[in-house]
Amino acid sequence: MKSGRCALALLAVLFAGLAATHAQDPLPSWNDGPAKQAIVDFVHQTTTAGTIDFVPPAERIATFDQDGTLWVEHPVYSQVVYCFDRVGALAKEKPALKTAEPFKTVLSGDREAIAKLTAKDLEVIATATLTGMSVEQFQAEVKAWLAAAKDSRWKKPYTDLTYQPMQEVLQYLRANGYKTFIVTGGGQDFVRVYSEQTYGIPPEQVVGTATSTTYGYDKDGKPFLTKEPKLLLDDNFAGKPEGIHLMIGRHPFAAFGNSTGDRQMLEYTKAGGGARLAMLVLHDDAKREYAYGPAESLPDTKVGTFTQALYDEAKKGGWTVISMKNDWNRIFSFDQPSR
Amino acid sequence: MKSGRCALALLAVLFAGLAATHAQDPLPSWNDGPAKQAIVDFVHQTTTAGTIDFVPPAERIATFDQDGTLWVEHPVYSQVVYCFDRVGALAKEKPALKTAEPFKTVLSGDREAIAKLTAKDLEVIATATLTGMSVEQFQAEVKAWLAAAKDSRWKKPYTDLTYQPMQEVLQYLRANGYKTFIVTGGGQDFVRVYSEQTYGIPPEQVVGTATSTTYGYDKDGKPFLTKEPKLLLDDNFAGKPEGIHLMIGRHPFAAFGNSTGDRQMLEYTKAGGGARLAMLVLHDDAKREYAYGPAESLPDTKVGTFTQALYDEAKKGGWTVISMKNDWNRIFSFDQPSR
Repeated sequence: MKSGRCALALLAVLFAGLAATHAQDPLPSWNDGPAKQAIVDFVHQTTTAGTIDFVPPAERIATFDQDGTLWVEHPVYSQVVYCFDRVGALAKEKPALKTAEPFKTVLSGDREAIAKLTAKDLEVIATATLTGMSVEQFQAEVKAWLAAAKDSRWKKPYTDLTYQPMQEVLQYLRANGYKTFIVTGGGQDFVRVYSEQTYGIPPEQVVGTATSTTYGYDKDGKPFLTKEPKLLLDDNFAGKPEGIHLMIGRHPFAAFGNSTGDRQMLEYTKAGGGARLAMLVLHDDAKREYAYGPAESLPDTKVGTFTQALYDEAKKGGWTVISMKNDWNRIFSFDQPSR
Repeated sequence: MKSGRCALALLAVLFAGLAATHAQDPLPSWNDGPAKQAIVDFVHQTTTAGTIDFVPPAERIATFDQDGTLWVEHPVYSQVVYCFDRVGALAKEKPALKTAEPFKTVLSGDREAIAKLTAKDLEVIATATLTGMSVEQFQAEVKAWLAAAKDSRWKKPYTDLTYQPMQEVLQYLRANGYKTFIVTGGGQDFVRVYSEQTYGIPPEQVVGTATSTTYGYDKDGKPFLTKEPKLLLDDNFAGKPEGIHLMIGRHPFAAFGNSTGDRQMLEYTKAGGGARLAMLVLHDDAKREYAYGPAESLPDTKVGTFTQALYDEAKKGGWTVISMKNDWNRIFSFDQPSR
């Protein structure tokens, strides 16, 4: 009896110890391995005072691509779905659009025809749905859409489809004094609508593809900004480091991407010198998400593709490739950990 | 003897009380009056939980013009002095410039001729001195210049000529959870070189007139950005709210300016609704600094002027005008308080 009580007490102590270890793991959705280790080592290196790689808190900048890095980008970018969905609302306001291309094709719902729309068609749709209104009106439209729209595979709002392991990285870096930025090829105004609630990243820390606005006054003399179709920043490829300079003004110490569109951002981050973390999410988990890389056959100039050339540059440049299949024990917050 | 000890003890308590009051004053360089009161009231209103004007910490954004609002802008913007000073160094690298206009005029030192340079001449000088080099080279050049250059009146580095009362406002707002931004008509890359050390404002919180950069590689394959003469944002007049939207993405709750170039920023701030603080620094102290407003005769379309029309809009719009002469008991940190 007495020894039984002792054994129970010992077990309780052991479990408490295990629970404490678990509670202290800042990256519980990551399996042990080189990817997780690279993140932990980087944080340790850059935040340990008195060491050669120590980074003063004010300079701790980390940048994250969004589509495919922080949330699902397949089979189609959520912002593209937004634009297509908005065409319906637009056609109600302007019935003439119902018979005008490319709007007619979008409204037909004919997937095959929609898939054949040209880049020029998509630009016309983007201009019609993303510009011409006040900033406030656009924000209200995106907010309403996000509350209603659902991803076709998971039947959940898009903002639920963020990668839990990456959410943990965001929190872990912030807990260690890093300022986290999104640097996305997506629309800056679009992502800013939900970035704070979804990622804890405020609008002023979202860099994206940006168009200009024009200042004016309404009939009561109240000033407002109108969204214009003039491109200021194409935040893909070389546009990413250019956008980082424009909006942030210094090299990131850590950068995360998943496609050829992030290549220059990762190169630029590494070029800052000292301890820098460059990571690429590889979509190799067809079961739990999607698998589309490394792809031999895809061109190196298309965003959203993880090519063999990118993989080779990662290996050569000291970047770390994250295997969704092997490095993550769950993908979404609603998944059961698989380890 | 006993009553004497009591009186001394009483005095000690009184002085301790006064010292504590003084220590608690977040704006010691401000005289009591409506301007100081407006700042204190605004902070109290927007940071008191449970009240109608409470602003969540993440939304606490305050924007500051720089030239004439945070530091001296007369008789000439320091960045213009920089460009003129750089012409000398450029001519050493490229001797052909010595005989080419407008460089020849600048090198002559003939103040009368320099004052007659056209806007086009100034643009040529700005392009030659602010673009064409790597971002890192430009930063090094500005840093070296700032360490050596001195204002002609005070014989001090330009970064010593910041307004102590405004430094206190920056600190007071930050101590109350506000994120402070510079929104300047000056060059974004120029101001970012010293903003952190001079104002405690990191580069990513500096919005200014911005030109583009181009991503490329040096002969060793190392990536770098080259400063290009293509204008992305003219951060004056309507460009200020447009720049705030581009770089910050939400309305400021407080904004500070000093000239017609800040008008739209202050209008836009007030248009956000609720408790918003819009303040204008009026240069009316010829003895301790300069006096140049309100000016009846100046055009409303020139930056750096405080016109009668601006003064009238301030009164009508509920903005607060700061009289340097009456509201500030000292201008610079090296001044003795005058109260």
